[in-house]
This record gives sequence, structure tokens and C-alpha cells, in this order.
Amino acid sequence: MIYCPDCPGILAQVTNFITVNKGNIIYLDQYVDHVDNIFFMRIEWALEEFLIPRGKIQDYFGTLIAKRYDMKFRLYFSDVKPRMAIFVSKMSHCLYDMLARYNAGEWDVEIPLIISNHPDLQEVAHRFGIPFHLFEITKENKVAQEEAEMELLSRESVSFIVLARYMQIISEEMIAAYPNHIINIHHSFLPAFVGAKPYHAAYERGVKIIGATSHYVTRDLDAGPIIEQDVARITHKDTVQDLIAKGKDLEKIVLSRAVKKHIDRKILVFKNKTVIFS
Amino acid sequence: MIYCPDCPGILAQVTNFITVNKGNIIYLDQYVDHVDNIFFMRIEWALEEFLIPRGKIQDYFGTLIAKRYDMKFRLYFSDVKPRMAIFVSKMSHCLYDMLARYNAGEWDVEIPLIISNHPDLQEVAHRFGIPFHLFEITKENKVAQEEAEMELLSRESVSFIVLARYMQIISEEMIAAYPNHIINIHHSFLPAFVGAKPYHAAYERGVKIIGATSHYVTRDLDAGPIIEQDVARITHKDTVQDLIAKGKDLEKIVLSRAVKKHIDRKILVFKNKTVIFS
Amino acid sequence: MIYCPDCPGILAQVTNFITVNKGNIIYLDQYVDHVDNIFFMRIEWALEEFLIPRGKIQDYFGTLIAKRYDMKFRLYFSDVKPRMAIFVSKMSHCLYDMLARYNAGEWDVEIPLIISNHPDLQEVAHRFGIPFHLFEITKENKVAQEEAEMELLSRESVSFIVLARYMQIISEEMIAAYPNHIINIHHSFLPAFVGAKPYHAAYERGVKIIGATSHYVTRDLDAGPIIEQDVARITHKDTVQDLIAKGKDLEKIVLSRAVKKHIDRKILVFKNKTVIFS
Amino acid sequence: MIYCPDCPGILAQVTNFITVNKGNIIYLDQYVDHVDNIFFMRIEWALEEFLIPRGKIQDYFGTLIAKRYDMKFRLYFSDVKPRMAIFVSKMSHCLYDMLARYNAGEWDVEIPLIISNHPDLQEVAHRFGIPFHLFEITKENKVAQEEAEMELLSRESVSFIVLARYMQIISEEMIAAYPNHIINIHHSFLPAFVGAKPYHAAYERGVKIIGATSHYVTRDLDAGPIIEQDVARITHKDTVQDLIAKGKDLEKIVLSRAVKKHIDRKILVFKNKTVIFS
Repeated sequence: MIYCPDCPGILAQVTNFITVNKGNIIYLDQYVDHVDNIFFMRIEWALEEFLIPRGKIQDYFGTLIAKRYDMKFRLYFSDVKPRMAIFVSKMSHCLYDMLARYNAGEWDVEIPLIISNHPDLQEVAHRFGIPFHLFEITKENKVAQEEAEMELLSRESVSFIVLARYMQIISEEMIAAYPNHIINIHHSFLPAFVGAKPYHAAYERGVKIIGATSHYVTRDLDAGPIIEQDVARITHKDTVQDLIAKGKDLEKIVLSRAVKKHIDRKILVFKNKTVIFS
Repeated sequence: MIYCPDCPGILAQVTNFITVNKGNIIYLDQYVDHVDNIFFMRIEWALEEFLIPRGKIQDYFGTLIAKRYDMKFRLYFSDVKPRMAIFVSKMSHCLYDMLARYNAGEWDVEIPLIISNHPDLQEVAHRFGIPFHLFEITKENKVAQEEAEMELLSRESVSFIVLARYMQIISEEMIAAYPNHIINIHHSFLPAFVGAKPYHAAYERGVKIIGATSHYVTRDLDAGPIIEQDVARITHKDTVQDLIAKGKDLEKIVLSRAVKKHIDRKILVFKNKTVIFS
Repeated sequence: MIYCPDCPGILAQVTNFITVNKGNIIYLDQYVDHVDNIFFMRIEWALEEFLIPRGKIQDYFGTLIAKRYDMKFRLYFSDVKPRMAIFVSKMSHCLYDMLARYNAGEWDVEIPLIISNHPDLQEVAHRFGIPFHLFEITKENKVAQEEAEMELLSRESVSFIVLARYMQIISEEMIAAYPNHIINIHHSFLPAFVGAKPYHAAYERGVKIIGATSHYVTRDLDAGPIIEQDVARITHKDTVQDLIAKGKDLEKIVLSRAVKKHIDRKILVFKNKTVIFS
Repeated sequence: MIYCPDCPGILAQVTNFITVNKGNIIYLDQYVDHVDNIFFMRIEWALEEFLIPRGKIQDYFGTLIAKRYDMKFRLYFSDVKPRMAIFVSKMSHCLYDMLARYNAGEWDVEIPLIISNHPDLQEVAHRFGIPFHLFEITKENKVAQEEAEMELLSRESVSFIVLARYMQIISEEMIAAYPNHIINIHHSFLPAFVGAKPYHAAYERGVKIIGATSHYVTRDLDAGPIIEQDVARITHKDTVQDLIAKGKDLEKIVLSRAVKKHIDRKILVFKNKTVIFS
């Protein structure tokens, strides 16, 4: 994935670089933000006959192309799976949805561990044979516990984190350690109903539509780059309990869609917004 | 339409009252709000063989039923059409959508006049043969102009007002004169993006879904009872101009659905929320 | 749940019957089909102070009310949970979704067993501690195997069956034994793409929307009463594999919504269509 | 717009051709169909400093690029507006929706004429100042009338036709004269409910979702390449009349979206399916 100031010829240069070195392009999606004048591109090519050795692509591309265009880029190899940690508290619907997909082979990812601040979902983790780590959190121990969590994450080479209705605010240190690599699900169509108890707030306001939003976690609560949103229709007959029940289906689907996009390296963050490649 | 504190037997009493007096019930929808313990009902019956004369139903029902149950009710006759005024400024999409429906006979309503603070849409009004009244509004003349508008509305026996992207804040006096009888369309999924320029705000925030909301106008800006909402999916490729274009389709459909519900007397307002009967 | 030919006074009679006998009505939804002139109603009341003993309600209501109005009705007690069997083959997504809900206590149901014609999902059943019964089916043994299945279902007092992507056609005998009590999920928006491989057919036809449909199984393939449908947008970029992946999310949500409605006894079938009470 | 068998280097070649000749690329969307191995691309560039004169681009590009890659392409100039004819019968909703957009300047198109087989909508055409041509059609005069229509269309340099609920089957001759240039709106989610009276069929089948489909007209009835579809939720309470009313909103929005895509030259037809560029 690439982005840089837009100027004539970038696209031709990049595709030429790959084609000339006998890489067969199998995917390309690009987009120009004409407001900020930025060129964004995601490109995949086959390495079988590629003339540049795998270990040197980063260097060659960086020197020969990226420098000239003041380009930021990230290089991924499709045979290297990302490693994902799931953080949960007491609600199981998002966790089950992700583990079912993982188990069925829908996702190209490793899930080496689940972390929780409550013991409730240990049973679910065990059913799926995934190590469950309990870090109970109080005001007093929060700093120490998060440090222990981060050590564990680092030891397990976790590349990104999914907060599956994890009911604790993540500290700035952890956010800084995983910039745009912590995915949260918020149970409203942000920016409406930021903060706690959004279904109660939605009921109170009398909206006719509820929603869920998955986003990367940043230092501003519920204000990070939005990855995916969806909504469901409700009526005056729905109680708060009905909203919570309907919302669960939204939450798990919206979160899983976002996680899938992240696993597939289809998301690029620029200026607190996401570019989602096709 | 009826609402009152819920207690056993209300439904049986009301339906009995009609049946015993030889009214044939052709529609009934009821709902109990178990949080506030309120009973809501909308009931229609045929008057052909009804024993109580048309002019006395209000009195009889009020005395014999409503009083006993501390009931609020409104009685409408389906052969009396509501009279609707449309307020516009410069954008035509909502106005066209409503006039096309009116012209095609989709709505059981009279539209005796269109009011605007700009001359731009006079031409559209003329095409459909509806009187167009221009009330240009400045800081200085606002009070006087609104008084003139209200006199005109009263003279034309207007029963409710539709703000079809009318870009002026309605004064408290006018709101008080038409309580829950002024329908506005706001171009966001409220309560997100209250106020001016919601599409710009939506673009800035990077949402993946935009919306439109029709609501009754109250003294709190964009905070009145919501009648109808809908949303459309957008992507990072959509510019503010794209949002505005996609939003127009939402706005006109959402506004027209709300107006239709109001014309059909399917909306009851309770505690700043709407009950929308089926 | 009640239905009968519509005539004046039914609603008053039924609600009176309950109120007079000191039953407190806690839910009522009714609807009149003016084409066939049929009155439909679902009503719930509390039994605490009800004067008619639980065991005699069926008899009393049948004699005093139902007979007079040529009424069909079904009486359920909310403390008696339905018992549900799940039939699966090889795909796990619908099974996981249902078991996760069951486990989280979302559904008021018992699931005493899972039946399959393939061993693949035995592991999943075991994880959730639900007995898994394998009935491998060939042309030769089909009749005998279904008989054994039905004996098992009967022994376990199963009240309804859910086909969670079960890839075998159910025989007429079994359908007759569970009329409008076998729920299937079909992976298209019926009546489009009846039969096998609907995603391939959808891809071939170039539709822009795919869907899923849950319905009761009748003797006509994919033609039973529809309970719930939903759709998802696709583009020309989606391959058949993409449709299958997107479709899975639709299938599980649509099936679970239908099952929930059935468990809550909110569905009434009339003339191969469903009335879904609120 | 381009399509050709996919092979390495095409993208680089085409973008190079434009960049080298000092064309500034302002839009590019491409897509590879890996099933049929076809490369599709839509590209826009600014002509201000382009070295090849406007009149020779077709020739140069054809000779230097297209021939080498066995490429089909179409060249459009954004300052040449397409000319669109609207065919109507008696229903006004789609016509109004399109004329309102045309009038508000939403579409970059010319509408030189409206053709109808009934006089009913003459009044609407006059309101918008667009010539209305009545061609009443009987079994006897159909061939002659269509010939007259085609002469008129040709005289007016019409480039494409929109059937806005036009209730006549178009003859093969006319279809052949405007291949993939006649847009129809069908009032169902095709391929469900092909043919006449789809809302009646939808009611009869008891579906929970209705739809509308816009497609190019081909010789097979309702089987041409689908451009756009959308759906709306219904319930058992909706009568056929309700479906028709709800369907109208779908029809007009779906048709207008398709027409907009066509006007913007974003649609490419391949093997009876559409590629819709972003």
C-alpha cells in the first residue's frame, strides 16, 4: 500500500517497475484524493518470476521509486499471516462470531490468545482451544496490568488487537504501541451517541435507526478512523432491551467485516480517515 | 388517536363502544409503553350505520369513555383533508418530489400555497399552478414577515407546515402556533451532525454512512420528535459534492414518507418521541 | 394465536373474555386481511389472577368463543419452552450462530440434539455439549434413516426442526409430521434462484444484490411460506467465492431471526404466507 | 472505456501513452475478471496540454495501443453531452423524478423529446417545456409507428433511450438500433417476477422484500444486463396497493441512478453483465 502527493506518471512508474522486473500484477486499486491531492494505491503481484529477491524488494522499491515521489509505503507478503489478539469482557456475541469464522477457515490470521478483565468467557476460549489470559483491572493495578499485557502481546508477536466489547479504556501507551492496529466496535452509528450506554441514549432520543461502528482506537474516545458502519431499523415498540438484542447482530457483523478488511491489508489510514481498498 | 394510562379493560371498552353503536371497525393498532405505562391506540370505523351523529361523537366519546380513563384523544374524519403549506428556499428536489406526488393523487391533502424567502422556486410553483408567496427575510424584518406569514397561513386554514430545505430558523411564536405540526427535513442521521453543513461534517469525520431525518420542529434546534430516518452507504471516494448529491435522494424520500404519515394521521407524539401507527 | 373470518365485535369479545375473568392483557397484536376477510390476532395475558384454571383454558375458550366465530386458535404457555432439533451437513456458520445465541441465553428454547448426514460438525456439537447424531444417507437407506430420525425426534419430544444448510431433501413423511414446523434457510432472495447453486446463478445473471430467505418447508421445493428475507449489495468485482462469503453472513442472520420469531410464537401461517406478529 | 484480454503491462502501457503525450490523468478505474481473463479500464485525462489533437486521438490510440492488445475501446469527450429520449405511458413518478433532476442541473444531458403511447403525460412534458410526441400504438400500426419513432430519434440525434414505465414491448429492430442504449425499469428484483404484474406476484408469494431493477433492454424480456437494483422491506400487512406505492419510490430512484451512471459513461457491458466503474 502506497500513498504520496499526486503527480503525473506515478501509476505508470510503479506498474512499470513491477512489470519490467517480471512481476505479474494480480490486483490494483488506486484512488486520488483531489482535495488534499494525495495518490493512494494498493497493488499485489506474484513473486514467482520476480527478478528482485524477496528480501530486497523493500530496499529496491524504496530507493528507486518511493524516494522520488515522497511516497509512504508498506510491503506485505501474503504468506505471512497477521497475528491477532482478542480482548473481551463479559459479552460473548462478537467473540463467538470471530472464533467461528477463524475455525471455519474464513480468515487468514492466527489468534494466539484472548485477553480479558473478567473470567466469564474463559469457558468459550477453552472450547475453541485458544489460551485465555485473565488480567483483572482495578484503578490501582491498571498501569501494571497493561504493562503485563503488552509484554505478553509482544512475546506472542501480536500484530493487531481487536476489542470485542472490551469494557475498559485502553491507555495511551498501548494505543501508541499499536497505532491504527487496535480495532474497536462501538454500539452506535458514530458520531451519534459517543460514550457509555448508547442504546439507552438512542431509546431516549427516539431514533428510528440504530447502528454500530468499528474504528481504530486513537487517544480521543470513539473518535478514531471509522472502518465500517451499519444500521438497523427500529420502531417505537422497541424497548431498550430490544435495541440491545438487535444491536448485537449489528455489532458482530460490523466488527467482523472490519477485522476481515484489516487481515486482508485493505485499509490505509490518512488524516484520521480510512481508505478501504476494494 | 388515543393515549392514556394503561389499565385493564380499556381496549375492550373502546371497541365495545364502537361496536355497540353499530360502527364497523376497519382499522385498529394499539401499543402499550410498559416503561411509562401508557396505552396508545389508533382506531378507524365506518360511520354509515353509526348510531351517534357525526357532530356528537367528540362529545359522547369524551364523556362516556375518555373521562373515565383520563384519556387524551383526537378525532378525525377521513373525508376532511388536511391543508398543507410548503416552505422552501433555493433547493428544488424535495419540492418537486412532493408536488409530483400531489399531482399524481398519491396524497390525500390540499396544498393551497408555497412560501419562500427567495424567489428562485417561483417558477416551479407556477408550473404546478400553486400560489407562491415571497417573504424575503432580513434580521430587521423577520418578526413582521413571520407575522404576515402566520396571518396568511391562518387565512388559508393551513393545518400543518412542511419545511422542504427551508433555510431559516422558525421563530418560537410560529412553532407554538403549530405544535408538532411543522415537519422539517434535516440532512443527517440525527443526533449526529446537528446544525449547519452536516455533509461537510460527515466528510470530515470520515463516516461510511450518511443519513436524513424528518422530525417535528420544536424550540430546540434539530431536537424535535423524529418521524422517519434513512441512510445511504458512502465510501472514501465520495467527495462532499457526492455526499450532497446522494443525500438529496435520501432527503426527498424521507421527507415524503414523513409527510405521508402525517397526512394519514398515523403519528402521535408523546414525550418528544413519535408513535407511528401501522 | 387466533384467526377466523372477520366480523364486527370479535376483538371486543376476546378481550372481554380475558378481562372479565381477571386476566391482565400484556400483549395484543391484530390484523385484518381485507382481501380474504380474515381476522388475525395474537394476545398474551398474565395467569396470576386468572379465574379459569390453566388446564381448562383451552376448553373454555374453545367452547365459549372460538366455536361462535369459527375460529382457529393455538394456546401456548410462556413457561413451556419449545424443543428444537438442528439438522446440518458440512457448513458451520449457521450452526455456530445459533449455538452461540443458545449458550448466551438469547433464546427461550431447548436444543436436545443435532442431526447430520456428515460427521464434519460433530466436533462443534461436542464443544457446546449437545448430542450429535449421525445419519448418513444414501439412496438405498434414505427411507429407513428418516424413520430412525423421526423416532429419535419423537422420543426427544422435538417440537420443531431447523435445517441449518442441511443438504438433503426432506421426505414428504417428515414434512407431514412437522407441518409449518421445519424452518429452512435458502441462499437466495426467493423466488429468484430456486434450487441448487443459487450464488453461481446470481453471478451468472449479474445481479447487483444477493439475498437469503428463511421459510417453512412444504412439499414444493423452496416454495413454502417465507418468514424472513434480507439482502446485501454486490458489484461486478465480486466472484462466486465472494458471493458465498457475503452470503454466509446473510444466511446466519436471516435464519436466526426466523428461528427467534418461531420460538417466540410470533408466526401464523395462512394460505402459504406468514403473518408475523410484532 | 477499454476492455481486452488481460496480459502483463497493459495498464503501464496505457497510462504511459497518456502521460508521455502530456495528458494529465484525472480518473482511473480498472478491474480484471479473472474468470474470463479480461482487463477492463476506464480512464479520463485532461486535454489542455495533450500533444495529440482531439480529432486524432481515436486513430492514434487505436493504432498504437488498441491493436496490439486486441482491445475494444470507446472514446468520449466530456464536453459532448449525450442526448436522451424518455418513453412513457401513464405513470408519472419516474418522469417527474428525471425532469426534476434535469431541471435542477443534476445531469449532464440533453432531453430533446418525450415519446408516449398515451396522451396522459403531455401536460407534464409541457410544464417542463419539453416536446411531447404521441405515438398511439395498436397491433396494426406498431411497425409503422416504431419506424416513425426511430426516424424522429435519429433526426434529434438521440444517443440513448429511457423507458420510464413505458408499457409497450420494444421491437427487435429498435433494440438492434440502440444496443445497450435502452434503459428499462422493471418493478421487481430480477430475476424474480419477470413479466407483467410483479407486485401482484410478490403479494401472492408472500415475500418480505420487494425490489426494482434497471437494466439494458435486450431481445430477451427482462433478461438484459442489470445496471442497478434496490429493495424495500414489506410486511404481511401490505396490500398490493401498498406494494405499488412503496415500489414507486424504489423504481424512480433505481432508474435515476442507472440513468446517471449511463450519462456519466460509467457502464461497460460484457457478456450480458455490466461493469460499473466507480
